Amino acid sequence: MTAFQNIVEHEHGTWALAQVMGRLGWDQETTMPRGAAVQRSEEMAALETVLHARRTDPRLGDWLTQAEAPDATGKAILRHAKRSFERNTRVPAKLAAELARVTSVAQGIWAEARARDDVPHFLPTLNQVIALRREEASALADGGSLYDALLADYEPGMTGHEIGAMFDRMRPRLVALREKVLGADRQPAMLTGSFGHDGQMRLSRRLAETFGYDFTRGRLDLAVHPFSSGSGSDVRITTRVSEDDPFNCLYSTIHEVGHACYEQGIDQAYAFSPLANGVSMGVHESQSRIYENQLGRSRAFTGWLFDRMREEFGDLGAKNAEQFYGAVNRVSAGYIRTESDEVQYNLHIMLRFDLERALISGDLQPGDLEAAWNDRFLSDFGVAVDRPSNGMLQDVHWSVGLFGYFPTYALGNVYAGCLMKALRRDLPKVDDDLAAGNLTAATGWLRNGVQRHGGLMEPRDTIAQACGFEPDEEPLLAYLEAKFSDLYAV
Amino acid sequence: MTAFQNIVEHEHGTWALAQVMGRLGWDQETTMPRGAAVQRSEEMAALETVLHARRTDPRLGDWLTQAEAPDATGKAILRHAKRSFERNTRVPAKLAAELARVTSVAQGIWAEARARDDVPHFLPTLNQVIALRREEASALADGGSLYDALLADYEPGMTGHEIGAMFDRMRPRLVALREKVLGADRQPAMLTGSFGHDGQMRLSRRLAETFGYDFTRGRLDLAVHPFSSGSGSDVRITTRVSEDDPFNCLYSTIHEVGHACYEQGIDQAYAFSPLANGVSMGVHESQSRIYENQLGRSRAFTGWLFDRMREEFGDLGAKNAEQFYGAVNRVSAGYIRTESDEVQYNLHIMLRFDLERALISGDLQPGDLEAAWNDRFLSDFGVAVDRPSNGMLQDVHWSVGLFGYFPTYALGNVYAGCLMKALRRDLPKVDDDLAAGNLTAATGWLRNGVQRHGGLMEPRDTIAQACGFEPDEEPLLAYLEAKFSDLYAV
Repeated sequence: MTAFQNIVEHEHGTWALAQVMGRLGWDQETTMPRGAAVQRSEEMAALETVLHARRTDPRLGDWLTQAEAPDATGKAILRHAKRSFERNTRVPAKLAAELARVTSVAQGIWAEARARDDVPHFLPTLNQVIALRREEASALADGGSLYDALLADYEPGMTGHEIGAMFDRMRPRLVALREKVLGADRQPAMLTGSFGHDGQMRLSRRLAETFGYDFTRGRLDLAVHPFSSGSGSDVRITTRVSEDDPFNCLYSTIHEVGHACYEQGIDQAYAFSPLANGVSMGVHESQSRIYENQLGRSRAFTGWLFDRMREEFGDLGAKNAEQFYGAVNRVSAGYIRTESDEVQYNLHIMLRFDLERALISGDLQPGDLEAAWNDRFLSDFGVAVDRPSNGMLQDVHWSVGLFGYFPTYALGNVYAGCLMKALRRDLPKVDDDLAAGNLTAATGWLRNGVQRHGGLMEPRDTIAQACGFEPDEEPLLAYLEAKFSDLYAV
Repeated sequence: MTAFQNIVEHEHGTWALAQVMGRLGWDQETTMPRGAAVQRSEEMAALETVLHARRTDPRLGDWLTQAEAPDATGKAILRHAKRSFERNTRVPAKLAAELARVTSVAQGIWAEARARDDVPHFLPTLNQVIALRREEASALADGGSLYDALLADYEPGMTGHEIGAMFDRMRPRLVALREKVLGADRQPAMLTGSFGHDGQMRLSRRLAETFGYDFTRGRLDLAVHPFSSGSGSDVRITTRVSEDDPFNCLYSTIHEVGHACYEQGIDQAYAFSPLANGVSMGVHESQSRIYENQLGRSRAFTGWLFDRMREEFGDLGAKNAEQFYGAVNRVSAGYIRTESDEVQYNLHIMLRFDLERALISGDLQPGDLEAAWNDRFLSDFGVAVDRPSNGMLQDVHWSVGLFGYFPTYALGNVYAGCLMKALRRDLPKVDDDLAAGNLTAATGWLRNGVQRHGGLMEPRDTIAQACGFEPDEEPLLAYLEAKFSDLYAV
């Protein structure tokens, strides 16, 4: 076998074992008996040891120095394999083990601190996590930016500087839009009515099918925090049900379907290779967001959904499709990112991005984080944070060491804005389809333009070739300003 | 670290990864999307490669030559580790891979042959599987009996000769009992009534709890063929529902609960070691059988169950507890092992045992198997086999290479007979408990006598120390003759 063939075979096994790890994660969140938690963590640690040994196998290093790719697909495989090998061999095993140990405990401490609104309880742990991630970033950065080294795990090819500049351009327009919308005389009403569990799940399944999710290669279950899991021919989604708020369930489902359809849509020719995964968190989020927002919360599609909701639940409080559209897209003041809306969501991300960049660079000390968060929240959202669980303790991410992850959510929105602009250009009658509950053309366009390529191209290139133009923030901002100015008559 | 400590750490990881493999098997039979089958087989193959490499790791061989056990538990750990290392290193990797490949295809061919009653379609594959298993047995046997080498995977320490002699003593008495019972004037009636899916599952859960299954460390799902899966703190069971025949569901559940309680009952001190599994298939089956039959189908317990069934399903057709007891223990002529009863079940096993021993020794050619099966069936069951799917094609075992497995079912019954005799000696009032639906003392006795020991002792010793006498077939035969002579008044 050639060095290249050896790499392909090695990656095949690694990919398969990584799927097994994903399946254990799914099981843990959906079906695992609660008494199995300790044993499961040992099982996952044993499998993680196996995966780490494969990813740092010295033979892989040798093959990578010798391998020649036969074609463009081969080049992409080598690019991923090389990046993974370097990333994994640069971090000393002792540091990786220490990070795993500390972050697994840190999540519990964070949960306690959030429940008690007790920042001092969390600070020593946060200090420790940041110190370890900085140490890891130093090992990875090779003299470059620490933050960029962490960002590369989630959005390869992107820099903190580039994202920061883009966010700085977006912020004033989003703050201005938020102020206009929240100050508007016309405010949409929430739904009223009764939204039973089974009805929400039935409609969730129908929405998943409508958006092209393939149930023969997946399944829908319940979880506390909805997620999508797996690649290839086993991509599972979860949702949750709140009997007061059916949109929580339905739009969580559509969001996860976007992630899942990306994985299900990857070219079968890439099966069991590093190309058989979504290429980055940002591109992944572009799919979940365009399914959920640009398509799922459009006036056209909510017109169709309004009828389906009335069939399932009877009277919703909304008199007509336009009122229903208002309820789906309602903007209201609030502290919590995950309960936010299209207008305010990106402001949440920008706040976190600037603070975490400063934490990693050392410009901000964890002890000063609460004050910095609250100042910034007041400035961007016009509201004073009332307690830490509504402020710096609201998200799990930092406790488990996820620094560099937050910006990919907003990057996904930016990419979704670009993709929707290009999709409308290529499918001028898309609103007629959406109004009929027919997503075939829209999701087919995304599958062909983005999803099928998997890891073939770099993230930004994936979006650029799908759109036919270089992505930037303008289409998203124009879309949001137009949509919400119209809806709120401002 | 000492050689012994290295072994303990190595076995810890292997045990954890074997649990992951078990979980994949559970998922495959209960929740996996059907389109994921090909990918799943690749995932399992990748994990099997990892497990095989661990089990044949040359370092393990070195440690085993040097290790000294600090105590009895340590000695048992070394015994298991040594046996596993020898078993796995003796079979050439190429042969193991070929066996895996051929048996994975063979199961599909067997299923086709069974569906079409087409023995010639199955014969070339069966020939191939037997040839490979004989080759494997030669590698394992070290000049000894081929069949014993295969049997050792399921029932270490037992020989085909020993089992054959015991079965030869049992057969005439079981044939005589079958003839008396089937020829009796008094024949119990089957139940009539309506047995809804949800009611059966509700009662299944209740039975599982009644027999001591710990749902915080397990769960109950549906599967085509009921099974129990996993060890330690994640032991899951499955059942199936036939709306015509509630006993199928309820007694499948109790049977799997027996297996699961064995795993759940093992001493926590053995966690993540080779002792943290049931010690053999025969001892495992002794637990499932005594839960299902000696306890679950007793007159005392069915009296309690009769009331629970009427609460759940209303009129059952049975006028009183005695008629219900008859329905639970009804013996009827039939071809299929898995639909059999306490009287005829062991005759099914003896038939298979003699034939598979002859197939492995070479005394019987696969081409002569159908005639041999049908002759023997007529002689032991008094009925001519009408078609191969009711004869030699009824069981999946041989197609997947399981030779040496069948006798452990009957051995389990023999052990269950011994355990029940000892249990009645130590708990003379057990029938009063059973009549009240109280299994605490009986399952506690089994946990303390058998289950908690896991792999500490050899299989036969495990039973002998629990009973206080050497196990043989007499208690089982005496139990069956007394129970069915009474029930059928013969």
